[in-house]
Amino acid sequence: MRILVANVNTTESMTEGIAEAARAVASPGTEIVGITPAFGAESCEGNFESYLAAIAVMDAIQRYEGEYDAVIQAGYGEHGREGLQELLTVPVVDITEAAASTAMYVGRSYSVVTTLDRTVPLIEDRLLLAGMMERCASVRSSGLGVLELEADPERAVEAIVAEAERAVRDDRAEVIVLGCGGMAELKDRVVERCGVPVVDGVQAAVAVAEGLVQLGLTTSKSRTYAPPRPKRVTGFPVPRAS
Amino acid sequence: MRILVANVNTTESMTEGIAEAARAVASPGTEIVGITPAFGAESCEGNFESYLAAIAVMDAIQRYEGEYDAVIQAGYGEHGREGLQELLTVPVVDITEAAASTAMYVGRSYSVVTTLDRTVPLIEDRLLLAGMMERCASVRSSGLGVLELEADPERAVEAIVAEAERAVRDDRAEVIVLGCGGMAELKDRVVERCGVPVVDGVQAAVAVAEGLVQLGLTTSKSRTYAPPRPKRVTGFPVPRAS
Amino acid sequence: MRILVANVNTTESMTEGIAEAARAVASPGTEIVGITPAFGAESCEGNFESYLAAIAVMDAIQRYEGEYDAVIQAGYGEHGREGLQELLTVPVVDITEAAASTAMYVGRSYSVVTTLDRTVPLIEDRLLLAGMMERCASVRSSGLGVLELEADPERAVEAIVAEAERAVRDDRAEVIVLGCGGMAELKDRVVERCGVPVVDGVQAAVAVAEGLVQLGLTTSKSRTYAPPRPKRVTGFPVPRAS
Amino acid sequence: MRILVANVNTTESMTEGIAEAARAVASPGTEIVGITPAFGAESCEGNFESYLAAIAVMDAIQRYEGEYDAVIQAGYGEHGREGLQELLTVPVVDITEAAASTAMYVGRSYSVVTTLDRTVPLIEDRLLLAGMMERCASVRSSGLGVLELEADPERAVEAIVAEAERAVRDDRAEVIVLGCGGMAELKDRVVERCGVPVVDGVQAAVAVAEGLVQLGLTTSKSRTYAPPRPKRVTGFPVPRAS
Amino acid sequence: MRILVANVNTTESMTEGIAEAARAVASPGTEIVGITPAFGAESCEGNFESYLAAIAVMDAIQRYEGEYDAVIQAGYGEHGREGLQELLTVPVVDITEAAASTAMYVGRSYSVVTTLDRTVPLIEDRLLLAGMMERCASVRSSGLGVLELEADPERAVEAIVAEAERAVRDDRAEVIVLGCGGMAELKDRVVERCGVPVVDGVQAAVAVAEGLVQLGLTTSKSRTYAPPRPKRVTGFPVPRAS
Amino acid sequence: MRILVANVNTTESMTEGIAEAARAVASPGTEIVGITPAFGAESCEGNFESYLAAIAVMDAIQRYEGEYDAVIQAGYGEHGREGLQELLTVPVVDITEAAASTAMYVGRSYSVVTTLDRTVPLIEDRLLLAGMMERCASVRSSGLGVLELEADPERAVEAIVAEAERAVRDDRAEVIVLGCGGMAELKDRVVERCGVPVVDGVQAAVAVAEGLVQLGLTTSKSRTYAPPRPKRVTGFPVPRAS
Repeated sequence: MRILVANVNTTESMTEGIAEAARAVASPGTEIVGITPAFGAESCEGNFESYLAAIAVMDAIQRYEGEYDAVIQAGYGEHGREGLQELLTVPVVDITEAAASTAMYVGRSYSVVTTLDRTVPLIEDRLLLAGMMERCASVRSSGLGVLELEADPERAVEAIVAEAERAVRDDRAEVIVLGCGGMAELKDRVVERCGVPVVDGVQAAVAVAEGLVQLGLTTSKSRTYAPPRPKRVTGFPVPRAS
Repeated sequence: MRILVANVNTTESMTEGIAEAARAVASPGTEIVGITPAFGAESCEGNFESYLAAIAVMDAIQRYEGEYDAVIQAGYGEHGREGLQELLTVPVVDITEAAASTAMYVGRSYSVVTTLDRTVPLIEDRLLLAGMMERCASVRSSGLGVLELEADPERAVEAIVAEAERAVRDDRAEVIVLGCGGMAELKDRVVERCGVPVVDGVQAAVAVAEGLVQLGLTTSKSRTYAPPRPKRVTGFPVPRAS
Repeated sequence: MRILVANVNTTESMTEGIAEAARAVASPGTEIVGITPAFGAESCEGNFESYLAAIAVMDAIQRYEGEYDAVIQAGYGEHGREGLQELLTVPVVDITEAAASTAMYVGRSYSVVTTLDRTVPLIEDRLLLAGMMERCASVRSSGLGVLELEADPERAVEAIVAEAERAVRDDRAEVIVLGCGGMAELKDRVVERCGVPVVDGVQAAVAVAEGLVQLGLTTSKSRTYAPPRPKRVTGFPVPRAS
Repeated sequence: MRILVANVNTTESMTEGIAEAARAVASPGTEIVGITPAFGAESCEGNFESYLAAIAVMDAIQRYEGEYDAVIQAGYGEHGREGLQELLTVPVVDITEAAASTAMYVGRSYSVVTTLDRTVPLIEDRLLLAGMMERCASVRSSGLGVLELEADPERAVEAIVAEAERAVRDDRAEVIVLGCGGMAELKDRVVERCGVPVVDGVQAAVAVAEGLVQLGLTTSKSRTYAPPRPKRVTGFPVPRAS
Repeated sequence: MRILVANVNTTESMTEGIAEAARAVASPGTEIVGITPAFGAESCEGNFESYLAAIAVMDAIQRYEGEYDAVIQAGYGEHGREGLQELLTVPVVDITEAAASTAMYVGRSYSVVTTLDRTVPLIEDRLLLAGMMERCASVRSSGLGVLELEADPERAVEAIVAEAERAVRDDRAEVIVLGCGGMAELKDRVVERCGVPVVDGVQAAVAVAEGLVQLGLTTSKSRTYAPPRPKRVTGFPVPRAS
Repeated sequence: MRILVANVNTTESMTEGIAEAARAVASPGTEIVGITPAFGAESCEGNFESYLAAIAVMDAIQRYEGEYDAVIQAGYGEHGREGLQELLTVPVVDITEAAASTAMYVGRSYSVVTTLDRTVPLIEDRLLLAGMMERCASVRSSGLGVLELEADPERAVEAIVAEAERAVRDDRAEVIVLGCGGMAELKDRVVERCGVPVVDGVQAAVAVAEGLVQLGLTTSKSRTYAPPRPKRVTGFPVPRAS
């Protein structure tokens, strides 16, 4: 099976990191294809950038010409999953939700450790809309921007572990979720340091997507995710600036 | 004061209708400027179109060159308000929320009567995220598409009144909210037929926006709606196809 | 238009302060009339006093002989709004709720800073019943009684600012609401000190009330706020002790 | 032990009915004293009347000169319990809450069958504030006014049983609560007709009050129900019109 | 009346302590019979032990040959109450729930102070399922195992009082609930030290059970607690190892 | 990998059906081992039987002598998952939860169609405790007992489809979950008849369990699911009657 893993920002090296993390857990027969949007922000850290990413991901998926069995939207707390579900029939998995549902199977409550403080509300919104907030003990920020994760992995690990420890001690989290697509590469080192299971959203999403394909499930087209009605739409796919 | 009222679809006649509805309740010193996005769908009836509208409205507001005191996003259940709040300092008012908070002052519970069944979840999502779902008795669809409202107002009034009556009788609604920017013109006729107060979102938003300006309030920049961080962003404002 | 602004306690100087705060934001054509109950407590800081205020405000409004377009109940966390809504057709606005709905437009979450610890539960109860608790980050007490606010404004400002800062830092509030009718006069000084928007309930209520009148809305009489049924009632309006 | 059972309206025959219902389940050593307010409405069917009752009951209890071990406020969905708790140290039991907590011990969910449709929101508000709404399947109205219960018991039984049956079938209630102080006398006949346990609020309150006294518990004075602070209060106890 | 008070562990001295605590508040005509399960853990401190206790208590009650009017399950946060309700017609009272509903009558919110940290989730689950979580300010652990309570009462009192003080100060609890069947004996000493009412679950359950019997109520058999359907069941009552 | 799939009742033919359903979706390298409890009820349709099953499943798993990578508890709405999680380190997946989390990926809301009305509350309880109730539109019963499913598959399909249709139309479900371990065999025929995706809990659980193993996750041992403390426990594993 082929799974498209869409980065939400325009940083290709991050797409690569995400795809590698995905491949590390994918089943033998699964091909992972990383997708980088053609426009948008170099990192998503707020609503404006996230809304832009929503369209940029839909645009990139729409322009992809091969076949595929599932799509993973690899932005933590990002907008857009519902739009993709309208446009496609194959399962669409948001990593925020995949991490949450996975974490709930191995602990009674989980905390998300994310990047900047300002992305906390976006993640909370996603979890609330997905109906997966009940067992979320907290969403905590490490204070690091998305690109800083790449620039200084040592510092990132320290900051993330520190928040994870606070989540376990103060918020009673029993599982830690890494709340940023770009954290995938750091996972093993965080696992080493934390006494509780650590879930990476991208990898969780691979397992969820493979599972949905395996079960033969596709997105319900009965109401919310029915295909857009036939009508005049301009500006999509987004015209390439010449 | 000047208030920009942004339609979420590309149908100019609808922008006109919305702006007129806004002017009908605006205070003497208030100038209403209707904004039509440069791209997107001719009507918003789903998540894909709504996400596209989010960017199209931000694009249109960003390109607007005059001064203004507040922005109204005139799409019922549409995405994007949080993005605008990051980009701007002046108050941004979503008509879904303005209708809800207004309705709550004149009745214990309210029901929204909207267009198609498929837009119900979008409205529920907006109300949930805004923390205004508690007093929502129901979101009901009239079964009519956005553009059908314009095409056959008689039928629209009948369908809307029928659902409003069910909301009052079965869901215990004490106020009816017209859940579509394009319903503004039908309001007086629905009021005539319904025994309970009827709130039009666009008009409610004008009152809310004027009130916020009057109180000297601007959007909090402390966390969620802080301006986007300086970074490389491409594709916004959206390049015009040449 | 004329708006009655009812103080909930019997301290006339506080009625004056409240009315002045209201006038400071009222539109040019709006007349603000301060109303002081004929009986009750010199300050409301608990349920007993609040219930007494509920009746005293209804009594005072009932005895008012002029015409008016809206009523503001200017007690933070006080009982009685629903009773007034049964007795009247014009909109009735509780400042607790007006502050909350206003704050929700300029920040993702708000905290209320009120007077004594014992009034916290009353405010929480009001917000819960109004369906506006979801985006309330916290209700915090400054530890000062209502009358102490008037007696020592310097100390009041310090105490309120201190709690506001804790709310922003620890509870993630993005807007501060001044949770006491008598705090209106301190608002400007608190604004100076706090980096986030500050909402005064009385002033927010003026904007909300003007908006409702502007929209031509009156209280729904369909169920909860229907006029009292005709029956034998004694002791209301409350007989004046001779 | 002596328990004061306060009617919330001024109809003495109803006080008698309530007291009798209470006596029917009281332990041998328990004296039940019926209290009728000196003013208020002849029946409570709305917020205005209920707020008036809150003060009238406090006034009547305050003027009672004997000793007593607990107070029952025998109005279904009425305001005032928290005020009494501030004024007194002995336990105060609201029949709305006593019925709910009792019903939850003998079934997974309960429905309240009350009088008029307009009293439904008052009951829901009380249950919400008491934290006892979770297991409430529904609050249903029989369409009968409080005084009609007395005037035509046959019709009352029929109407109540009909709603109880709907609650069991449609709302999945496993217990029925009689939601009006004046229904106490009808209980046995409703039990006969209904296949599920029937809880009368007044009688449940007697059991709860006796239990609290038996356990030596009194109202916590640590915060919400601390005694009113010393201050100037006029108009309470309410002066008798001369 | 006779009430069976079932300990959930196999430690007979603890059954004795529980029964004595029950007798201390039981009405003159009430006989308390302590029941010790024939198998299970010597103390219940987790889900496995609690599930085993659920069956062990049902087994012990099923084998009891006398008559009785009510059953109290005296484990804090333990599984099993719903099963007993299916097997029996007389009221079944879980001490977790009895403590909660009792506490809610004498304060606006309560905190539970229990034994080990790991039992906190079990208690929260019980309260959630019972619909009594709304007014629970917190469930706090003293860090002491069940059997340590018996072994070193001095240390137990200190640890419990310390947590109770934190609950009152930090979580705004107005009542403290002793969250372990084995704490009954320590109650008086904790009361001495704490300024707020203290509720022991076993004693609260006695009052609740007596009340239900007094009201003539039995468990609703309409759906959830209907008797098991006739079918082949093996292994219950649990065969005694020979 | 090897996954133990534990039936909750003693009917071996049902274990076989469940194991076959599991094998139908298991990955090539996955071995499915069906486990039948040594005691309990021939079908689980209530709390008593479910509590007995909790212990019987733990007993059976404990006695299993081979190695395994994950355990699936194949009872819909049954007790016990938390106990297994304490006893084991490998992931434990309850089919009620697996079906819910899977359904949430392919539709905005799901309804469960189960067997008897009396099992509805058990399923609701499980979903509530798992934090997966938010997107559950309804739990509906087909009115058929567990064993009737096997006896008359034609009638079962009709009854299940009828409820599924009601769930889609009246409760706005976008996905149907088959709420009984024994329904696995009927899935294909229900899919044929229903226009929305159908999720079988057993098969969903296989995908979830494989995913967890693939991700290298094991149950968090930090608090709720820590191993039972060393102590005297009798009666487990349950002694075999001689």
